[in-house]
Amino acid sequence: NLTAENFNVVETLRRSYEDRLETILQQGAATGDFVTADTKIATLAVIAMLTGVNTWFRSGGRLSLDQVIAQYWDMVRKTVL
Amino acid sequence: NLTAENFNVVETLRRSYEDRLETILQQGAATGDFVTADTKIATLAVIAMLTGVNTWFRSGGRLSLDQVIAQYWDMVRKTVL
Repeated sequence: NLTAENFNVVETLRRSYEDRLETILQQGAATGDFVTADTKIATLAVIAMLTGVNTWFRSGGRLSLDQVIAQYWDMVRKTVL
Repeated sequence: NLTAENFNVVETLRRSYEDRLETILQQGAATGDFVTADTKIATLAVIAMLTGVNTWFRSGGRLSLDQVIAQYWDMVRKTVL
């Protein structure tokens, strides 16, 4: 478990990268390049999809890192198109 | 932490729902209804996206459950189209 101090550090970092992604999605939605009902939900969905890779990716496994990156890039892009 | 026995129970359940989703994606890919480079990766991505909801959804929050379901249905569908 995290101490209160470290929790605050981690929480600040988490909000920072969530906000950076949400800003990108908001800008894309404003220009009509992205289609998303709610940018906050899309932000959380994309981050959850990506952090999930940590739980199963193994170097030297069935797929190369480049293959995984290519498919994730395609899936993430499509969620907001 | 889980005992070895409970770990096996959970692992069996996990493989079961992963396999059920992957079978759907494989069937859709075979008929050309779904487009996905690798059905296993798509399976893990969709499950990660969905289980992420547990970490932030609160009943009575900014969005209703129906709104969240609608957007997730749209995003998940688009990842494999």
